[in-house]
Amino acid sequence: MEKEEIMMGRHSLSHVLAKAVKNLFGEEVKLGIGPAIEDGFYYDFDSPNSFTEEDIPKIEKEMKKIISHAEPLERKVISKAEAESLFKNEPYKLELLSELADGEEISAYTLGDNFIDLCRGPHVENTSKLQNWGYKISRVNGAYWKGNEKNKMLQRIYAYAFPTKEELNDYIHMLEEAKKRDHNKLGRELELFTTVDYIGQGLPILLPKGARVIQLLQRFVEDEEQKRGWLLTKTPFMAKSDLYKISGHWDHYKDGMFILGDEEKDKEVYALRPMTCPFQYQAYLNKARSYKDLPLRYNETSTLFRNEASGEMHGLIRVRQFTISEGHLMCTPEQLEDEFRKCLELANYMLKTLGLYEDASYRFSQWDPNNKEKYIGTEKEWNEAQSSMERILNDLGVKYEIGIGEAAFYGPKLDIQIKNVWGKEDTLITIQIDQMLAEKFGMEYTDKDGQKKTPYIIHRTSIGCYERTLAYLIEKYAGAFPVWLAPVQVKVLPISEKFIDRCNEVKAELEKYGIRVEVDDRDEKIGYKIRSASSMKIPYMIIIGEEEINSNTISLRGRRNENVSGLKLEDFINRIKKEIDDKVLN
Amino acid sequence: MEKEEIMMGRHSLSHVLAKAVKNLFGEEVKLGIGPAIEDGFYYDFDSPNSFTEEDIPKIEKEMKKIISHAEPLERKVISKAEAESLFKNEPYKLELLSELADGEEISAYTLGDNFIDLCRGPHVENTSKLQNWGYKISRVNGAYWKGNEKNKMLQRIYAYAFPTKEELNDYIHMLEEAKKRDHNKLGRELELFTTVDYIGQGLPILLPKGARVIQLLQRFVEDEEQKRGWLLTKTPFMAKSDLYKISGHWDHYKDGMFILGDEEKDKEVYALRPMTCPFQYQAYLNKARSYKDLPLRYNETSTLFRNEASGEMHGLIRVRQFTISEGHLMCTPEQLEDEFRKCLELANYMLKTLGLYEDASYRFSQWDPNNKEKYIGTEKEWNEAQSSMERILNDLGVKYEIGIGEAAFYGPKLDIQIKNVWGKEDTLITIQIDQMLAEKFGMEYTDKDGQKKTPYIIHRTSIGCYERTLAYLIEKYAGAFPVWLAPVQVKVLPISEKFIDRCNEVKAELEKYGIRVEVDDRDEKIGYKIRSASSMKIPYMIIIGEEEINSNTISLRGRRNENVSGLKLEDFINRIKKEIDDKVLN
Repeated sequence: MEKEEIMMGRHSLSHVLAKAVKNLFGEEVKLGIGPAIEDGFYYDFDSPNSFTEEDIPKIEKEMKKIISHAEPLERKVISKAEAESLFKNEPYKLELLSELADGEEISAYTLGDNFIDLCRGPHVENTSKLQNWGYKISRVNGAYWKGNEKNKMLQRIYAYAFPTKEELNDYIHMLEEAKKRDHNKLGRELELFTTVDYIGQGLPILLPKGARVIQLLQRFVEDEEQKRGWLLTKTPFMAKSDLYKISGHWDHYKDGMFILGDEEKDKEVYALRPMTCPFQYQAYLNKARSYKDLPLRYNETSTLFRNEASGEMHGLIRVRQFTISEGHLMCTPEQLEDEFRKCLELANYMLKTLGLYEDASYRFSQWDPNNKEKYIGTEKEWNEAQSSMERILNDLGVKYEIGIGEAAFYGPKLDIQIKNVWGKEDTLITIQIDQMLAEKFGMEYTDKDGQKKTPYIIHRTSIGCYERTLAYLIEKYAGAFPVWLAPVQVKVLPISEKFIDRCNEVKAELEKYGIRVEVDDRDEKIGYKIRSASSMKIPYMIIIGEEEINSNTISLRGRRNENVSGLKLEDFINRIKKEIDDKVLN
Repeated sequence: MEKEEIMMGRHSLSHVLAKAVKNLFGEEVKLGIGPAIEDGFYYDFDSPNSFTEEDIPKIEKEMKKIISHAEPLERKVISKAEAESLFKNEPYKLELLSELADGEEISAYTLGDNFIDLCRGPHVENTSKLQNWGYKISRVNGAYWKGNEKNKMLQRIYAYAFPTKEELNDYIHMLEEAKKRDHNKLGRELELFTTVDYIGQGLPILLPKGARVIQLLQRFVEDEEQKRGWLLTKTPFMAKSDLYKISGHWDHYKDGMFILGDEEKDKEVYALRPMTCPFQYQAYLNKARSYKDLPLRYNETSTLFRNEASGEMHGLIRVRQFTISEGHLMCTPEQLEDEFRKCLELANYMLKTLGLYEDASYRFSQWDPNNKEKYIGTEKEWNEAQSSMERILNDLGVKYEIGIGEAAFYGPKLDIQIKNVWGKEDTLITIQIDQMLAEKFGMEYTDKDGQKKTPYIIHRTSIGCYERTLAYLIEKYAGAFPVWLAPVQVKVLPISEKFIDRCNEVKAELEKYGIRVEVDDRDEKIGYKIRSASSMKIPYMIIIGEEEINSNTISLRGRRNENVSGLKLEDFINRIKKEIDDKVLN
């Protein structure tokens, strides 16, 4: 079914809901509005009574009855006077009517013979078309009329709705799973991060377990990049406005930046950086460059700051400060395609190693030629940059969607997109081609022919933002990280207090191999300790009691229902070491 | 010789200089002022002619003559009228006289029989006392009269001066050495860092070689701390003003912070953090704590921001943004001394590993009871904190100086001080004891007796600020870092182009062992390549030519004049690997 058809069905169901409510609760219930939404629909009501949990099955039953009656939905074009008369008992509809421009066509839809709603449509012609649909009232919320808190609070009934019952069930199952995996909930329960009101929204605090995962990721990324010829830089997080005036950020990105000082009052105004580009370019500019120096690849574990609205903040995914593996590569035109390919290979290697590759999709983000003022550079420069990027993407066989108006202000991007458990898509990794900023900063190299030329710059991330990557990993693995990334890899559990010494010996032995291990020496029953370690998603538990001491072995419980006894400690060490070295996925 | 006596000698020498200049250049040279300074003295002159390089030996010769004449310096108390008459041809002296308050005693000093200067003294009684002194004119600078750029520019003659010629020579030698080692010069030449005007002062850009050294240091510190039971956190670099109001920073440290937003206009004002404390405490506050959880040790590779004046900035030592190994440890009173000792051991271990231990001294920084408004907490709390710190320092046998008024606003500190090549002392590492901030944030633990108690907090750095540490390492080793820290450890030099392939094979072989290696494949003579690698202070050069290829060996040149041929590559690898693993100092 096409998207439009689905939205039409959902919209029609909202009328069915409104009619059902009127049928059940009478004419004193006044109608607000009832649109289709991403996963169903809602309708707003002004009712003297609050809808309760018990009302929900009644309403669903009444909706089913209306649908089974195969009632027609019919469009009527009416005059404003007719409309005012028809909706004389519906104050919200009258308010909407009063706001219509003179001469605007007014339409209403009847549903059967005792319901009419002011509506542009379109709708299914008959509720019989809704017979196979799966729908379910999900919740009742308060919602201000027109979203304005000065207006009356109405009751909004939300429902999920899909063309088949299977799709509805799949969706509800997905939500249940998502709830279990939601990094913003699970990440807190597993003590990976927290947030604190008096620090601020979008400024998560990574607790030791979360900071450890990011430390491991960061070392992995820096090592892999160094192996591939990237040179590390470490540049400041702020600069005078002068820098951003050269780069164009001051004109094109100022609203997204944190400014230090007041342009009218202070001699020098600073801003926190939203991107690393103009800072990292200074390493290139540090001395004269020749074609022999190129390609020159700089990477940085870089912290960036974006002044986004508090309301948009979400866990570790939408934040105001984040750390990113950001790199800039300067090259000649002949090197561009090969270097772009290598950047893409690096990004894909990272995604594969983390097990996120199958969840990613590509997006070719282009400028919007109807909003030229949002960008630096000329139409000609944009056409050139975009067609060379298009050619490269096609050469490499990358399957992508096009996003008009989603380019950076200085150039087109290849965005690698990933969805969170709630289905919301965000960019994790981006690879961009740019010459405009190189020109603005006077970056040059002397070519073979002795001429000064402007290099191409590839802006790229390899793993993206560490906070966001951690969030996706929590959701992907429901908190049970691959062993090499688990903040605690082994928990050693003494069956009783007298085995604690041996547990500490085992711990010390594992630590010799760099394995992250804790002993649970609390005065608790072994069953409690096992449940506790399981709930923290620790990959392996080693249990030590009388039997293990006597036989000089360990008992092992693995995350995947493994339960072995009489195992030699060294055999376990060999096994987990291999799993860590190979970065085995779950 | 006592400091006062030295300053008196220098001051007398400035009179000798002034008399010598008058003798040589006549009465049209007008006198400004001539004080003693840290390493000698200067005198300001208003002369129709500029003093030249050639004048300097003449002036020094004339000074020597005056000293050899054993001329007396005699004090005279005179009336304002007498003074105005005596100095009628010295307009700058007249200006100084006009500014004196009525009734103030006016004194002048004669030197021999044809020189008098308006002066408070004291002076040596006779120039014969200066006979053993070493002095040397160091430079002639322009200097505005009274330091005000609206006044006339005078000529300032600077001289070094010490009680003996040996001391002078030692000082000049020290300056020459310092010049070679100055990190602010050498660090740029070795491409470790740079600064850029349009980014701002105190915001250095670490180039790949400098960033690499810091990466190595950071991993070393994080690993060592983790081994010693410290748990890594990663907390945000900014917070709402609300946080700093609780911690006391808003009242006691606001001028040193970068503020985002305007308190009068904006709903929410943020500030960049000058310290990690209140952020890292949130990890402790994340759940209820019992005495069994203590000590709890958190460390963070933390970036801090200090809003210092531009004029105070210096290379990598005085900066506005820096990254520091900062930790906070929560413990019971019984654990305090032992944990403090461990923090001190950790800091000393770091200093020893880096070879900086011998240059360090300890300073016990206390509050200033005459400036109570600079601190939080009561006199009783300060006395308690300082006496428990004193007891611990004495128990541990730490030899320290006391710095009154140098405490943090929340508690006393043990500062580990280190001097740069110019003799200027700064704090590298600090260990502090605090209970006041713990109280402000409501940090508690449940003790054995079931009572809620406030933990002690040790604030500590282990290696201090990475930028500053890098600066001291550059100066300590004149850029020739210990091998384990050298950004490039081996440079492979082909004698001619046809040996480049073998050089790349050697490079690949070394890289298998994680050794940082570059090939110099430029079309240059071998002598040039050797000088070039030496000037970059690269520990080892491997030279490959016909002979090395034929015998399947390498020729090695070490930084310490080592020059060996016929060496097996694997023998060199074993040797350098051991040097790296053992963190051998130069």
